[in-house]
Amino acid sequence: MNELKLINNIKKILNSKYIGDDCAYLNDLGIVITQDSLVEGVHFDKEIMTPYQTGYKSMMANLSDVAASGAKPCYITISISIPKDLSEEDVNEYYEGCKFALKDLDVEIVGGDITGSDKLYISICVIGKTEGRKISSRSNAKIGHKIITSGVHGSSAAGLRILMNNLEPDKDLIKAHLMPVAQLDFSQEIAENIQEDYAMMDTSDGLFDALYKIGKASNCSMSIDFERILYDPKIKEYFDDYKDLIFYGGEDYQLVATVPVELLPKLKNYTIIGEVIQKEDCVIKLNYDDRTEKINNIDKCFNHFK
Amino acid sequence: MNELKLINNIKKILNSKYIGDDCAYLNDLGIVITQDSLVEGVHFDKEIMTPYQTGYKSMMANLSDVAASGAKPCYITISISIPKDLSEEDVNEYYEGCKFALKDLDVEIVGGDITGSDKLYISICVIGKTEGRKISSRSNAKIGHKIITSGVHGSSAAGLRILMNNLEPDKDLIKAHLMPVAQLDFSQEIAENIQEDYAMMDTSDGLFDALYKIGKASNCSMSIDFERILYDPKIKEYFDDYKDLIFYGGEDYQLVATVPVELLPKLKNYTIIGEVIQKEDCVIKLNYDDRTEKINNIDKCFNHFK
Repeated sequence: MNELKLINNIKKILNSKYIGDDCAYLNDLGIVITQDSLVEGVHFDKEIMTPYQTGYKSMMANLSDVAASGAKPCYITISISIPKDLSEEDVNEYYEGCKFALKDLDVEIVGGDITGSDKLYISICVIGKTEGRKISSRSNAKIGHKIITSGVHGSSAAGLRILMNNLEPDKDLIKAHLMPVAQLDFSQEIAENIQEDYAMMDTSDGLFDALYKIGKASNCSMSIDFERILYDPKIKEYFDDYKDLIFYGGEDYQLVATVPVELLPKLKNYTIIGEVIQKEDCVIKLNYDDRTEKINNIDKCFNHFK
Repeated sequence: MNELKLINNIKKILNSKYIGDDCAYLNDLGIVITQDSLVEGVHFDKEIMTPYQTGYKSMMANLSDVAASGAKPCYITISISIPKDLSEEDVNEYYEGCKFALKDLDVEIVGGDITGSDKLYISICVIGKTEGRKISSRSNAKIGHKIITSGVHGSSAAGLRILMNNLEPDKDLIKAHLMPVAQLDFSQEIAENIQEDYAMMDTSDGLFDALYKIGKASNCSMSIDFERILYDPKIKEYFDDYKDLIFYGGEDYQLVATVPVELLPKLKNYTIIGEVIQKEDCVIKLNYDDRTEKINNIDKCFNHFK
């Protein structure tokens, strides 16, 4: 089954105006809400992640969705289904990891439930407040917007590959995979300072994925200057296809936004990687190595660097 | 692992004032939030439930939690993990069932996510508005409160047993199991008319379970007149242990509340089944067949009618 097809079916059946962004913006309540699930063996591998790391990362992944909306995360519910081979200590550790992820934040875990199951299955809901903030939508990109990102890209995918293939460990890259950090400050700075509509997404499924989805939803194309994208140079030492990791690798939980140029002087930390351009026969125009490549199909383009 | 033990651990780790009721009451936002998960093979059996019925019932089970809080359900997110043997049509049918459950309600499905997995796993989050309503807590029962319930009890468990054992089908009892109805009107009537604190729970885990949890959380005992509890007389024809089904059977999604007697003239449909009494060495005093039995331990008491 194709996920996009299923989502389109569901949209048709439910006929909801809300479904489209990672967070639903409930204007009358002044909140956004997001829900995401993590399945053992699909989203995480218990051979490479401790319960503590799983708890920590499950929080960060969901906080990152709220960060992408521009809202301030405030309340969380956790639903956890526990297989018999998970010990009481493992479950406690999971929640210790959750707690650690929230330690510097004004965010509370307020509920959820526990059930039995065959595999560890986690579903997390986060509510964010929108007061004093402008909320993003992936359909808000406009021609002329600058495309900016937080942090470095590709480290998480590199860390995962190191772990999976038992390569010489690198502390930073492995940490980027196991203990990522949601970009709440980057989000806040934009959401509190911007007046106009803007697009923002996190790079949970990769930088390219975020750009592509914004381009599709906003019906515009993007010109990306690959050389401007920040990355940890160690990736280049480890992997020949480092460009794929940077552009397509997931789970860095960085943010990418399209904003009017006038906003930029109000922001402290960001990298301009490109610009929103008129809809062409492509969604992303990628400039690298003095060449320009056009990418107009998400299925075809993976690993196009190769 | 013991679920109560785990919940106590989690409460200790998270040190949250919110965890205790089925819904968390977020006063500053004027909402309650609840999240519940359903796992194939644990909470439902695909041999006896269609995807449509699963969708319908998954909505009702979660609406019932909000009904128990006294709030008005308004927004829902659905996270669904789909095994490979589920067809696109099955997934569509699931959402059609969800939609049908909401058809007369002012409730919208606003988001969620889809992932792959080994088994069908559903996690649902509901937000309810609290404006104009008094919110319940299971710790609010007070001595002298009347204990009232909605509807009939035991039908769902009887319907399940008929299905599981291939007995002569009974339309009403099977419908009570497959297509239960959350008691939103009963909830609204209480929540909009009551001034004092009150306790309310749904009977998703059985009438006894709800009474027991209210008694424990409120530190009081209850005197229940078993003869007053309403049930479909067909249960008695089917099963000799019908009293067990009525008192312990789950998934009727009726409501049970402890309220001051002054409220009763303002309510239209309810059954008084007992009264909150002083804490004794028991939690529930059950009067039936001219006998009185004291039940003071949830583990020991199951099937005590036998």
